[in-house]
Amino acid sequence: MTLAPWYPILTNILHENRRHSHSRFFQLATVSADGYPRNRTVVFRGFLEETNLLQIITDTRSEKMIDLRVNPRAEIAWYFTETREQVRIKGKIAIISHEENNPQLQQIRLQLWGSISDMARLQFTWDYPKKSRLLNVPFPKIYPPLDSPVEFFSVLLFNPHEVDHLMLRGNPQNRYLYRLLSDGNWSKEEVNP
Amino acid sequence: MTLAPWYPILTNILHENRRHSHSRFFQLATVSADGYPRNRTVVFRGFLEETNLLQIITDTRSEKMIDLRVNPRAEIAWYFTETREQVRIKGKIAIISHEENNPQLQQIRLQLWGSISDMARLQFTWDYPKKSRLLNVPFPKIYPPLDSPVEFFSVLLFNPHEVDHLMLRGNPQNRYLYRLLSDGNWSKEEVNP
Repeated sequence: MTLAPWYPILTNILHENRRHSHSRFFQLATVSADGYPRNRTVVFRGFLEETNLLQIITDTRSEKMIDLRVNPRAEIAWYFTETREQVRIKGKIAIISHEENNPQLQQIRLQLWGSISDMARLQFTWDYPKKSRLLNVPFPKIYPPLDSPVEFFSVLLFNPHEVDHLMLRGNPQNRYLYRLLSDGNWSKEEVNP
Repeated sequence: MTLAPWYPILTNILHENRRHSHSRFFQLATVSADGYPRNRTVVFRGFLEETNLLQIITDTRSEKMIDLRVNPRAEIAWYFTETREQVRIKGKIAIISHEENNPQLQQIRLQLWGSISDMARLQFTWDYPKKSRLLNVPFPKIYPPLDSPVEFFSVLLFNPHEVDHLMLRGNPQNRYLYRLLSDGNWSKEEVNP
């Protein structure tokens, strides 16, 4: 996979906004089975090495997993507060769950499990997300082992095919559209803000 | 309309995060006619007085308007960087365009037009958004009149029916769900993070 022309641009934006930990959070929209748009903040876990694929981790029991199994289409809205620019990324998501049979994909899941914090790993051992919180349900504080991901730990690989980069600084603002072409190359177009 | 139980909570969050202008930006997800989730950052223009309705302004020529005319359902994802909490709001959007015949609704549009900055008003006089930027197309710098909104200025009224409030501070994190009931009241439930 050749790196897209927006890849170094996004990498540079991340660098320029690095002093804010929230610069690695973006909003991920999906569509639920009943046709409702759903939207939530997730953490960017870096690009899969040498590719344009964005990595996200999630609990297999979360609503977004149910949505994505029906409709893998998604859009990221990513606003950078320091440099005042927005990157919107349209694409499709592939799921790597504990049931994944492909050893290369399972390796990606294992690697991400090893890269996250103890606290982040801990949350995958907790009770069902978004269910009524009951007084007698414990939230374990014992960290799960580093070398074997717990069952509910899943990885989402986001594969972009359109990137919309808007810079609010400037009058008029500057905006560029990148589109993945059928030959695997990307077009770049300057558009009205 | 009685104010919802989440209304004072959201108002308080906005107050606690007021030193960052980006605290008034949120991500709005919709579904396009082809079933794709769409997601973009928009500015919160306050609640419509004495109601739970969130006000947003938009260009009538924007893609979200096309989406919303087909499917009025939307979800807001709002992340507050200072207090580290997320408010997700599910609801439906009503459009107030220049063609709106209801004088009370048209009054809301007029009022918002008067409340925004010269620069914000100016953008509604510019060329078609997201079309190829041509060298010979001017971006006027003459502010349109305060008292009469330009044609492409529209207001979106977001009517919430589910609010999901997650506080990242705390171990485990705290999360509350508010749901609009058929009798017009709201339920509140503590749920697992």
